[in-house]
Amino acid sequence: MSEASQTLDGWYCLHDFRHFNWHAWKQVPSEERDQMVNEFHRMIEGFQKVEEAEKGSHALYTIVGQKADFVIMVLRETMEEIHDIELAFDKSGLAAYTTPAYSYVSIVELGNYTPPEDDSDPLDNPWIRGRIYPILPKWEHFCFYPMDKKREGEDNWYSLPIDKRRELMKAHGMTGRQYAGKVKQIITGSTGLDDWEWGVTLFAHDALQFKKLVYEMRFDEVSARYGDFGAFYVGNILEPEKIQSYFSV
Amino acid sequence: MSEASQTLDGWYCLHDFRHFNWHAWKQVPSEERDQMVNEFHRMIEGFQKVEEAEKGSHALYTIVGQKADFVIMVLRETMEEIHDIELAFDKSGLAAYTTPAYSYVSIVELGNYTPPEDDSDPLDNPWIRGRIYPILPKWEHFCFYPMDKKREGEDNWYSLPIDKRRELMKAHGMTGRQYAGKVKQIITGSTGLDDWEWGVTLFAHDALQFKKLVYEMRFDEVSARYGDFGAFYVGNILEPEKIQSYFSV
Amino acid sequence: MSEASQTLDGWYCLHDFRHFNWHAWKQVPSEERDQMVNEFHRMIEGFQKVEEAEKGSHALYTIVGQKADFVIMVLRETMEEIHDIELAFDKSGLAAYTTPAYSYVSIVELGNYTPPEDDSDPLDNPWIRGRIYPILPKWEHFCFYPMDKKREGEDNWYSLPIDKRRELMKAHGMTGRQYAGKVKQIITGSTGLDDWEWGVTLFAHDALQFKKLVYEMRFDEVSARYGDFGAFYVGNILEPEKIQSYFSV
Amino acid sequence: MSEASQTLDGWYCLHDFRHFNWHAWKQVPSEERDQMVNEFHRMIEGFQKVEEAEKGSHALYTIVGQKADFVIMVLRETMEEIHDIELAFDKSGLAAYTTPAYSYVSIVELGNYTPPEDDSDPLDNPWIRGRIYPILPKWEHFCFYPMDKKREGEDNWYSLPIDKRRELMKAHGMTGRQYAGKVKQIITGSTGLDDWEWGVTLFAHDALQFKKLVYEMRFDEVSARYGDFGAFYVGNILEPEKIQSYFSV
Amino acid sequence: MSEASQTLDGWYCLHDFRHFNWHAWKQVPSEERDQMVNEFHRMIEGFQKVEEAEKGSHALYTIVGQKADFVIMVLRETMEEIHDIELAFDKSGLAAYTTPAYSYVSIVELGNYTPPEDDSDPLDNPWIRGRIYPILPKWEHFCFYPMDKKREGEDNWYSLPIDKRRELMKAHGMTGRQYAGKVKQIITGSTGLDDWEWGVTLFAHDALQFKKLVYEMRFDEVSARYGDFGAFYVGNILEPEKIQSYFSV
Repeated sequence: MSEASQTLDGWYCLHDFRHFNWHAWKQVPSEERDQMVNEFHRMIEGFQKVEEAEKGSHALYTIVGQKADFVIMVLRETMEEIHDIELAFDKSGLAAYTTPAYSYVSIVELGNYTPPEDDSDPLDNPWIRGRIYPILPKWEHFCFYPMDKKREGEDNWYSLPIDKRRELMKAHGMTGRQYAGKVKQIITGSTGLDDWEWGVTLFAHDALQFKKLVYEMRFDEVSARYGDFGAFYVGNILEPEKIQSYFSV
Repeated sequence: MSEASQTLDGWYCLHDFRHFNWHAWKQVPSEERDQMVNEFHRMIEGFQKVEEAEKGSHALYTIVGQKADFVIMVLRETMEEIHDIELAFDKSGLAAYTTPAYSYVSIVELGNYTPPEDDSDPLDNPWIRGRIYPILPKWEHFCFYPMDKKREGEDNWYSLPIDKRRELMKAHGMTGRQYAGKVKQIITGSTGLDDWEWGVTLFAHDALQFKKLVYEMRFDEVSARYGDFGAFYVGNILEPEKIQSYFSV
Repeated sequence: MSEASQTLDGWYCLHDFRHFNWHAWKQVPSEERDQMVNEFHRMIEGFQKVEEAEKGSHALYTIVGQKADFVIMVLRETMEEIHDIELAFDKSGLAAYTTPAYSYVSIVELGNYTPPEDDSDPLDNPWIRGRIYPILPKWEHFCFYPMDKKREGEDNWYSLPIDKRRELMKAHGMTGRQYAGKVKQIITGSTGLDDWEWGVTLFAHDALQFKKLVYEMRFDEVSARYGDFGAFYVGNILEPEKIQSYFSV
Repeated sequence: MSEASQTLDGWYCLHDFRHFNWHAWKQVPSEERDQMVNEFHRMIEGFQKVEEAEKGSHALYTIVGQKADFVIMVLRETMEEIHDIELAFDKSGLAAYTTPAYSYVSIVELGNYTPPEDDSDPLDNPWIRGRIYPILPKWEHFCFYPMDKKREGEDNWYSLPIDKRRELMKAHGMTGRQYAGKVKQIITGSTGLDDWEWGVTLFAHDALQFKKLVYEMRFDEVSARYGDFGAFYVGNILEPEKIQSYFSV
Repeated sequence: MSEASQTLDGWYCLHDFRHFNWHAWKQVPSEERDQMVNEFHRMIEGFQKVEEAEKGSHALYTIVGQKADFVIMVLRETMEEIHDIELAFDKSGLAAYTTPAYSYVSIVELGNYTPPEDDSDPLDNPWIRGRIYPILPKWEHFCFYPMDKKREGEDNWYSLPIDKRRELMKAHGMTGRQYAGKVKQIITGSTGLDDWEWGVTLFAHDALQFKKLVYEMRFDEVSARYGDFGAFYVGNILEPEKIQSYFSV
């Protein structure tokens, strides 16, 4: 039996990707459409208040390609709040013109944590708190993908000794550090919660940096031998003040 | 040929995950909706009477994310009863606003049973009866996932000698025991009944415990080398008195 | 090149699994529903006459869980008859309220046949005829699953010498024999006809026996190393006299 | 780098499998249905004229089971003609009652060609021309499946020396030759055109021969170690004079 | 850790494959259809102006078989422009008669770049600029497929030393060079952007060349051992002046 790594867990997280039915939407009288867009806009404003109160965070991005039209990502303190938000959206007017595209349930996680040398509570550490209760940046571009660590024949992450895992993760972290300021990364853990073991959410000012970062990381031993990757979703920020024009037809 | 482990088998089990069509539901006049919700409520009350009579058990949880809106889990003495419940729901008013999301057919199972030292009938043992005819706890959170034991190259569970399997399962049980009082686990066997070999249903007061338990267990050799996992469904309890507000639009 | 085993082939077989649209069905005026149920009833009566004449056989079972609502399994002498039955059902009134769930095309097969010591025609042997032209039992429970023999790395069934395959199949048969009287098994071959190499159809008085049999067999070397299994469908008998109440809403 | 085998390439090929919506079809007034069936009939007559002029060939078969209702297979000199036929059918009346089931794009191929000893053009050889520009037989039964050659670990077809590949294909051809007169086989290559590397189309008077041939071939080393098989579609001939009764409801 | 290869990155790329609903389209009054076709035609004309200004490029091809009816491929300087085009099409009249078939998001890439011997900027090199900001040829045939480099056991591309990768890619390039003038190839990288690591888009005057090229390349060690391929889409050019007749019913 190899030893499990320690994790520090923060906010619950839901990624809610939706298709939008433009054809049905165009049949709706414009006044009704306006009402529904306003209702949606108010929901986002509500999210902003929660964010200002540092009780959670959120992101709204359009998705490029046919995998989805847009994604709402929310971070909250409990699974109940996450579900309340999902349910409120499902019952809203706009939701009737969406169909599910993909969703992901997870918890913000700080992994491979090196324990403090003294006996202080890591949650007293502001850097750590900022990592597990993150305010999502409003950067231009978004990328999400889920991933597993492999358990295939000789390439079995979960059978490696913890020191080997720590060493591989450290080298991986080094690659990531070169993208500081260019790519902001949120790691959420989903073992026991959703179909993959982690979700990776990236934000960038320049979408090309997603490609550079993920490509370069693929040569790290931890990815090359042990990484299994799901579908990738990329998109552009949909700022609150652009919501109206996005839905105008 | 390696020796099959003994199992003790209890109640039949159906997990019935459903999507709910909120858009169509909102078109229905509110009186008709009330009737349908009442009919659903009465079905759940009927389940409660069966549970009080210790002839079965059930659980009703909402599901977070797009995989489903809610799940009805029922335990009964026969496959006929399981099907009667499914059919009655299918013919009900509310069901017309649902679409199938996922289902799972299995039988509560107590595996790797260490035979009693005397010749007593294990079914005379109340602890054992409580395990194979369980009354499901009404805890805040729910998690379900199906799983297989691998049969790939060198990692073939079914070719291991029974002593090795017993040893690995015992170590695995140790990990589980640390979560006593935090996570309640129901194992159902489905070899010959559904697409995976087992279903795992977990209940917790704190959803984070699902992540901690399943993550920690993944490092046990039995999971690391021999476990294959299906989709994970997590959610929050939907208490009978909350049904009405859940369906109100 | 390893030698192919001999098979004796009997009736063609179609498993036709259907979903039923209860919501649409309830919109139909009750007289029209009665007509459609009667038409379906007469189709089943027609099957019974064919069975009495020993020109084929059939089974009608409900399926538990969301994979399907019911299955019609038919055995006939030719592929044309199989298709005629499917087409007649497709054109019937009731079929309009069904959608395809899964189907399987195969031929009843007696495999690993030990050639008779004299030069008699195996088809003169009544035991053999009963095996390849079987009248399906009207037992309480049904189970179907398709399967392949693996061809992966060291675990390649088709590269084994015929003597090894015969030995493994014999041991497997021994496991099955312990379930005589409890589980009746029909093996149909589908190499060249459908997506898996075999279909296994089981009948039992007690559904738990499916789990016990398939679980125990999984430890046989032939399954542990060489078996690949598809989806499992289980259900309860739908006797002709219960058809009307099944479809009543 | 191992040497690619030579192929001789003939007609382009489209297999167009369709589901038919019998329920919607029954709603259509019978005169309109007759018109649409006549239009379809004329399309098939047009194909027959092309076939008589030896500018292409075609086949029309019903499919047994739920994978499709029928398949139109066409061979033509160019990819443009193939697409014109597909588009004309898509715009026809009958097509509105079909939904796509599966399709396959390929080119008739004569593989592992042993070069002529003199410097003659192989296309001057009538036997070769008959193989790459084949007139499809109007036999009772049809079978189609796509396939790949494996590239997994030690079982990598594309890394084998050409002599080894030639030897394995020759042995495979021997197995096929035993079915001469019973099964007619058309090999179409689809590397670079569709999702598998080859399509195999079989015709037989007796559908059981599909099972016997494909089963026996599975023991050839080329299939046992290197073959990967997709879905199998089987069916019965739909002769032009039976089209009307097939579509009558 | 093995060293990542350098890439030069050019225009963003979206492949947008669509199904077309001919049945619904035929219900539309012919004047409305004309308006929608004209609107689509103007969109394509707009693309042509961008192409003439060398600010991007595009291609419009019909797809053979059921995977899609047509594909719109666009190259632009930013991810925002790519999304604006997709959104404008989604809101257009014609789009209401399409459904998503497949899409792919990537960036034109010049891989395995041998650095210039002097310190000149590669973007000053017109040959390089023509490769990463390509004007797509208006050739008769189109082929698209996504691909990965394998990371399975011994066959792990990302663990190979860079010299070995360079050598294998060079040999692969040699194979490609034989098709100069017959097949034009655009490589787009999608690591971090879409589900595969690369997209390959091919153009040819003669569709048979796709089959010859991809088949021959499969024997190159880089493909035989390290290539994993997704679905293949092939089709014929849909020139602007043919749009009207294509959509006429």
